[in-house]
Amino acid sequence: MNTVSTVRLTQTVQKGGCAAKVAATELRKILAQVKFPAAPKELLVDSGTFDDAAIYRVSSELALVQTLDFFTPIVDSPRLFGRIAAANALSDVYAMGGKPATAMAIFAFPLAVLENSVAVEVLQGACDAIAESGSSLVGGHTIDDDTMKFGLSVTGFVHPDRVWSNAGAQVDDVLILTKSLGTGTLTAALKRGEVTEAQIQDAMDSMCLLNDVVGCLSTDQLAGVHAATDITGFGLAGHGLNLAKASQVQLEIQTSSLPRFEKALDLLAKGFLTKAHRTNSEYVQGQVQFGDQNLSLQQLVFDPQTSGGLLLAVAKDQADAILSTLSSRFPMAKKIGAVRPASSILLNFI
Amino acid sequence: MNTVSTVRLTQTVQKGGCAAKVAATELRKILAQVKFPAAPKELLVDSGTFDDAAIYRVSSELALVQTLDFFTPIVDSPRLFGRIAAANALSDVYAMGGKPATAMAIFAFPLAVLENSVAVEVLQGACDAIAESGSSLVGGHTIDDDTMKFGLSVTGFVHPDRVWSNAGAQVDDVLILTKSLGTGTLTAALKRGEVTEAQIQDAMDSMCLLNDVVGCLSTDQLAGVHAATDITGFGLAGHGLNLAKASQVQLEIQTSSLPRFEKALDLLAKGFLTKAHRTNSEYVQGQVQFGDQNLSLQQLVFDPQTSGGLLLAVAKDQADAILSTLSSRFPMAKKIGAVRPASSILLNFI
Repeated sequence: MNTVSTVRLTQTVQKGGCAAKVAATELRKILAQVKFPAAPKELLVDSGTFDDAAIYRVSSELALVQTLDFFTPIVDSPRLFGRIAAANALSDVYAMGGKPATAMAIFAFPLAVLENSVAVEVLQGACDAIAESGSSLVGGHTIDDDTMKFGLSVTGFVHPDRVWSNAGAQVDDVLILTKSLGTGTLTAALKRGEVTEAQIQDAMDSMCLLNDVVGCLSTDQLAGVHAATDITGFGLAGHGLNLAKASQVQLEIQTSSLPRFEKALDLLAKGFLTKAHRTNSEYVQGQVQFGDQNLSLQQLVFDPQTSGGLLLAVAKDQADAILSTLSSRFPMAKKIGAVRPASSILLNFI
Repeated sequence: MNTVSTVRLTQTVQKGGCAAKVAATELRKILAQVKFPAAPKELLVDSGTFDDAAIYRVSSELALVQTLDFFTPIVDSPRLFGRIAAANALSDVYAMGGKPATAMAIFAFPLAVLENSVAVEVLQGACDAIAESGSSLVGGHTIDDDTMKFGLSVTGFVHPDRVWSNAGAQVDDVLILTKSLGTGTLTAALKRGEVTEAQIQDAMDSMCLLNDVVGCLSTDQLAGVHAATDITGFGLAGHGLNLAKASQVQLEIQTSSLPRFEKALDLLAKGFLTKAHRTNSEYVQGQVQFGDQNLSLQQLVFDPQTSGGLLLAVAKDQADAILSTLSSRFPMAKKIGAVRPASSILLNFI
């Protein structure tokens, strides 16, 4: 997609994408020492972990969905990076059942190192995704910095009674994942020159895809979605655990049927891992069990995703219809398991 | 205010605060090449320059004010820096006549270089300002980075018919500035060790002060405010020029009566300048004239402000009452001039 620059963005940064995130455990230690202002009654969903979207009630019919995300380049092409960063930020609004309305850009750019044309391409990629979402870029802030960082602060709207959260999953619900897994290992391999963008085109296309599930489903189908979360830096296991905890259920997942990019298991087997593979594994320790002893498949559930899919817990009798509707937009969407009663094991990979 | 760290934050960055901003001329060149999504009818005020707040109409009675701002440390104490960065970001909402509702943090932190206690202090300073504004910190995003950056994305509310803009100033309006000038030269001197924070306490206090003018004034007085802007990186001259252009008027300003911090003229005379002093001067070239030939006074109007005051154009017959009301919150607020009919000179410093 990049027509103006031959610079490989992943070579301009030490840590790409989610790997540059402050680890959840470290962040919790910091946040535990801060005295936050009291939350007003309008704040329906707080983001105590600093990671997800917040919901702020404006009236009985309208709530704001607010989210903010930015990171360093995880792909080489500037336009692709801008598009992926925007899709990733917009996803948090979709994951709450919301519709994006306005976006503001966060842009750190190394003026001395990269040509202005690179900045133009990053912004254009983001604008393309924002336009497709039907929202507007209304402003932002730029800073001259040593390494590039790009992202968005997004405000969306949702009806306060129709907010999707981690907390609504019910026993016997079917779990649907809208995108394949493996962007963590694939982009690690890209950074190290093992693969080119063209060789992992399936992952590039997937990261560009907007998680607009709400826009696909009928009113009846929307009511059949009991819980949702988007799969990003903590991987399927980490975000799945958060959903299981919030809903007080166990997730039973058929590991072998997980949708994945063509080269994902191969690259995981070859050891293209990030620090997040380890920290994500530690995050769920003691609450997960694996029936399948294939180590690459196990690493796949810890793989940190950028612009990953939504994990949906949907009513059993509506699952086939919802999956069928989603398939036209999300070709890799699959049923990956079911919701079971809570036990000491919250994630059961069978 | 800092009790936990002896690190001097200004020594950890190459470029402090507004000096790290991508220059307006450079940014305009980049933005001119990007194809933006079409603006919807709900977008009442766009931020085509990427700098100011945007206004998005939700209903006939409610509009969102949206702004985003972040920068590198301009002071040494972490808590002070967090507080100032938050006050600076909140100010854009106040400048539109709005009331802040929610804030999300943008936090780049060098984990390898600085202790976690520094991060705690920065966040606490920001939370203190957010709590004072009556808004809520609802989330954010952190990233491990070489140099610290902190700021907020803020959403506020305003009645769509009561938005303050640059465009409403009327001939014979009185100009009021709510804070003293000089934070640019003072923080440049601080970074270079010429002064300590304690020696420029007046500027520290001023940068911490929230620009909540709306909360001070009566309904009658609010109607007497015809235009407003906040004075930040482009200085009094740059932001004044934007207001003059938008309102198609000339601003006549009594240079010698401009409120300023105690050491500001002295430090300007000693040459504590930033790149922005030059670019701000270039920005208004050919549209400004000076009656007073004191060069330090001239530099003062180009001095880039961080968390600077609001410049208000108010109805002549209400100016004294408004100033008197504001004085309890803004001890340095002063009448600095008047609005005149437009001419080829838009800024007349008499």
